[in-house]
Amino acid sequence: MRPSECLLKVREVHPLVHHITNYVTVNDCANITICAGGAPVMADERGDAEDIAAVASCLVLNMGTVNRRTLDSMLAAGKAANDAGVPVVFDPVGVGASRFRNSSADAILSKVDVAVIKGNAGEMGVLSGMGGGVRGVDSACATDPAASAKVLAKRYGCIAAATGPKDYVSDGSTVMELSNGSDMLGLVSGTGCMTASVVGCYTGACGPSLDSVCSAITAFCIASENAADGCGPGTFKMRLFDEMLSLTAESLDSGQRIGTL
Amino acid sequence: MRPSECLLKVREVHPLVHHITNYVTVNDCANITICAGGAPVMADERGDAEDIAAVASCLVLNMGTVNRRTLDSMLAAGKAANDAGVPVVFDPVGVGASRFRNSSADAILSKVDVAVIKGNAGEMGVLSGMGGGVRGVDSACATDPAASAKVLAKRYGCIAAATGPKDYVSDGSTVMELSNGSDMLGLVSGTGCMTASVVGCYTGACGPSLDSVCSAITAFCIASENAADGCGPGTFKMRLFDEMLSLTAESLDSGQRIGTL
Amino acid sequence: MRPSECLLKVREVHPLVHHITNYVTVNDCANITICAGGAPVMADERGDAEDIAAVASCLVLNMGTVNRRTLDSMLAAGKAANDAGVPVVFDPVGVGASRFRNSSADAILSKVDVAVIKGNAGEMGVLSGMGGGVRGVDSACATDPAASAKVLAKRYGCIAAATGPKDYVSDGSTVMELSNGSDMLGLVSGTGCMTASVVGCYTGACGPSLDSVCSAITAFCIASENAADGCGPGTFKMRLFDEMLSLTAESLDSGQRIGTL
Repeated sequence: MRPSECLLKVREVHPLVHHITNYVTVNDCANITICAGGAPVMADERGDAEDIAAVASCLVLNMGTVNRRTLDSMLAAGKAANDAGVPVVFDPVGVGASRFRNSSADAILSKVDVAVIKGNAGEMGVLSGMGGGVRGVDSACATDPAASAKVLAKRYGCIAAATGPKDYVSDGSTVMELSNGSDMLGLVSGTGCMTASVVGCYTGACGPSLDSVCSAITAFCIASENAADGCGPGTFKMRLFDEMLSLTAESLDSGQRIGTL
Repeated sequence: MRPSECLLKVREVHPLVHHITNYVTVNDCANITICAGGAPVMADERGDAEDIAAVASCLVLNMGTVNRRTLDSMLAAGKAANDAGVPVVFDPVGVGASRFRNSSADAILSKVDVAVIKGNAGEMGVLSGMGGGVRGVDSACATDPAASAKVLAKRYGCIAAATGPKDYVSDGSTVMELSNGSDMLGLVSGTGCMTASVVGCYTGACGPSLDSVCSAITAFCIASENAADGCGPGTFKMRLFDEMLSLTAESLDSGQRIGTL
Repeated sequence: MRPSECLLKVREVHPLVHHITNYVTVNDCANITICAGGAPVMADERGDAEDIAAVASCLVLNMGTVNRRTLDSMLAAGKAANDAGVPVVFDPVGVGASRFRNSSADAILSKVDVAVIKGNAGEMGVLSGMGGGVRGVDSACATDPAASAKVLAKRYGCIAAATGPKDYVSDGSTVMELSNGSDMLGLVSGTGCMTASVVGCYTGACGPSLDSVCSAITAFCIASENAADGCGPGTFKMRLFDEMLSLTAESLDSGQRIGTL
């Protein structure tokens, strides 16, 4: 599927994207989900999350401010999603920054069948064991994000995306290199989280695939290019929502900068 | 009271509006409360919430991301508000979406004397038993929102408002139909929550009545009309705060589109 | 150090500012930290917070929506920060509004060695015992914020800042009076919290001192002056981030309005 087809499918299906996520960027995740064509819902009490995950189009698990209560809810909702055939997107925010985050990521990856893992280059390096590190929740270093994505995709039988100035998406055999995006994304908190939400929309509507994940990242990155025009990060963030909503299908296909590694 | 009188009263009283609410839209609730003329405070630890509810002008209970801890706090703060004669506004976000939300709404409505219930048409349909449903936290269907509002107002001896493209507000005998508002409200997360905050301001300053709730909804909806001028949802949301603050009393009376059903 | 030197140091060091804060304004805290030149991280699960606090440049403890779980995390992370020599900034949001907030503030001040206390005039009046009060989380009255700052600085061996239309910063002997800032700051939720985040950046990069805290408050206030030009509070807040990022070192020195009391 081309990005244009994915975009049109998302807008047609209007996928219900259930998030168990952090309280730092949750509002931005909700709004970008709407602008991407989905319907956001956030619920993190165990019973609530299980019921909603089972009927959602996609479940997004984001570890940004995970605690013991919400980790328990993530595991339970992940299982409910798996049982119902609902794809799970996992964003291992800040893995490598603490023992608790490391063990939380391990628990999720060992107990939930994830369809997509999306992290920054540092996080994917940590998870893959290929080498990488974070500083707080920011990528600090990563030896080879493309290799990390490929290793993780193969290990977990999923799609894996390592985001950064260039994004690398792999299904375990192919690795795609994506070159869209604006530098402004690095000056706004939560753009990684928002990327995961858009991936949740595309995965929810089109299923998890190299195409759908690449299309989601491309859509978000092209919206960021359209939003950036010399403005500051406050103005940029506001425009990002406007541009996400007004993306045209054609502009995705013509604007996508993608190649096979 | 006409909307203009309510607005002036809110700005004079500067009501302290205590929220126990969700972490998705809480910042927007705080800012719209300020722009509407109130002073927001959010506290959800049981003891904290009880002390503050007892001295607030109004308590807003919003179920958007309720969990067992915050449900307990809502019940305790609701009781403290009742004991102190502080009106309680209840927003049953997502009722119908899970068993936990259903039982939470039941607990609140059976243990707290609510002055106002405000939900979207689907939520009010679920609560009233008139028929209705939600998809996540969005209204999915509702057979007759005006009837739901009337039934709920009568059942709980309160003012009930079912919001949507048209809003229906009832005191159990009369039903008012409100026709202000912009389509953009559906493209921004939390506009329902913000409506409840504004209702909290007006109820806190003017008491719970058909007039004060209709005026609050009218004020928010006219601000939304003023904010929408072909812009996207990011820009619209920013302007919504500007327009809420700069509303004139006269524009409310002249702009209000209201009728008795 | 002049404000210009502090600003350049912050941008050079890019301090990692760990927040345990409230969910109302957390996103704004993250974004203002980025725009001020720092790297924000929020983590409030006890083990997570301890690990991250120990490697952060600064730890900001904000009591805005504190609960028993996060109070426990604040105490543990505060101890970890103290052990590692990481300065702690404390924002006693809403102290005086409830017994729980009072006892939380007492616990933090008795168990954590704080480098900076920053509150609004009412909060600082409550903490100092000089007289003061809050209404919700807003300053309601304060007899003498300069005296409160001086008393608190002396009592805790720290820098203390009482913010308001004028800001007073003391090291226990000198009191500086700062006169920058825009009235718009009072119309946006979380500007006090954002001030604490900026203080966290400057303290993290330059160490806790009268100069660094005055420079941080000056930087935020001059950004607010640049952002305000007759616009409403929604537009103002967006611009505040833009202006914080684009501050020049020279404009801080030339724009600073400061005097010794």
